[in-house]
Amino acid sequence: MVGKLYGVSVGPGDPELMTIKAKKRIESSDVIAYPVRSYGEDSTALGIVKKCIDISGKRTEEMLFEMNPDPSVRESNYKDAIGKMASLLDRSDVSMINLGDATVFSTYMHVSQDISELGYETETIPGVTSFCSGASEAGIPLLTDNEGLSVVSMAARNDRVFKALRDFDNIVVMKAFNSMKILASMMDELDIPHDRAIVVSNVSTEDQYVGRFDPDRKYGYFTTVIIKKNGGMRP
Amino acid sequence: MVGKLYGVSVGPGDPELMTIKAKKRIESSDVIAYPVRSYGEDSTALGIVKKCIDISGKRTEEMLFEMNPDPSVRESNYKDAIGKMASLLDRSDVSMINLGDATVFSTYMHVSQDISELGYETETIPGVTSFCSGASEAGIPLLTDNEGLSVVSMAARNDRVFKALRDFDNIVVMKAFNSMKILASMMDELDIPHDRAIVVSNVSTEDQYVGRFDPDRKYGYFTTVIIKKNGGMRP
Repeated sequence: MVGKLYGVSVGPGDPELMTIKAKKRIESSDVIAYPVRSYGEDSTALGIVKKCIDISGKRTEEMLFEMNPDPSVRESNYKDAIGKMASLLDRSDVSMINLGDATVFSTYMHVSQDISELGYETETIPGVTSFCSGASEAGIPLLTDNEGLSVVSMAARNDRVFKALRDFDNIVVMKAFNSMKILASMMDELDIPHDRAIVVSNVSTEDQYVGRFDPDRKYGYFTTVIIKKNGGMRP
Repeated sequence: MVGKLYGVSVGPGDPELMTIKAKKRIESSDVIAYPVRSYGEDSTALGIVKKCIDISGKRTEEMLFEMNPDPSVRESNYKDAIGKMASLLDRSDVSMINLGDATVFSTYMHVSQDISELGYETETIPGVTSFCSGASEAGIPLLTDNEGLSVVSMAARNDRVFKALRDFDNIVVMKAFNSMKILASMMDELDIPHDRAIVVSNVSTEDQYVGRFDPDRKYGYFTTVIIKKNGGMRP
């Protein structure tokens, strides 16, 4: 018997923001796999799961994806992960859990496509993104009828962030935690007032911060900036 | 006693894609309000709720927002809706339900901001968007680490859709149901092969269609096109 790979999105942080489907899927899985940047580190996704599901009796498996500048290390990590996943699937179903939504900046989607090419069945269960949750917490729309939205990552190319800021009404900048000053200078260059930006950090967790954009403040790793050029911020 | 307004996102269609929080909130609400374009029409959002929650004994209230070309009609609808909501809140909590996520193209967000200015407390519960659900069903990432994503509506200005197609790797075009030919001609002008687009229609419902982009085919009202210029589509 060959198992099926489920990519289960667990949402932004609050365990109650997990979908009913995600919860049921994890409850009925014998194996929970989760990505780590180093072995033994705390997994935010697993932490969310543990708050609402009793996982004792389930096997948990770390999938190592280092943030290593050397591409050969990253490739070797990835190859190992695919091998490990395939051998797990040869025995049972696996739920690979993902923070937020699995289709937004996740390693799972690559794993899923390669595992699928090896002949295994896969299914992705969508979830609540951190930016939807952040906008909800801030009480602001991400976009209304005549607007566009762009989602970019500060970890990627800066010119794309700049273009997004220039051409779109609403911009979600993810992974912004250590790039606040660069972002501030781009906004200054484009005459976007800083009060059009809201910072959403560790959304829907106990450490949540939702507030004004302050380039001099320190923010946590899970920090997203939502910029609404047309305003529409609540005080 | 004055009630609180909850904007409850019910997700894209499958009742199990509702969050645990949304389900609990609706279960504990005496009043469920939902937007309609004409009185008595079927509400997709209410249909989702009814599939997993027994709403007998709860009061349901239609909020009329016509798709009328006359702005004075739309303004009058909106004013009436705010008045109705305020009078409901003077007696109890209200859950206003929203398809997908309440921060993406929803009337609720405007209602929430105005109700909040009248002094009532409001809270938004985020949900799974149709585009995350669609990408999951298609088995494709919405974006990976070095990419950007744009979300635009075909109901809005065409030049924005064109810019998004020109400048972004990944483009989600919402409300595309009757604009497939315009979209196709934009893609042709920008040399984007049609096989880089996937159509997601009535996602996570029994009428779901996930498949190749065909400008000559008829699609339902809830149709989104996901275009990945760099490929990454599964067959």
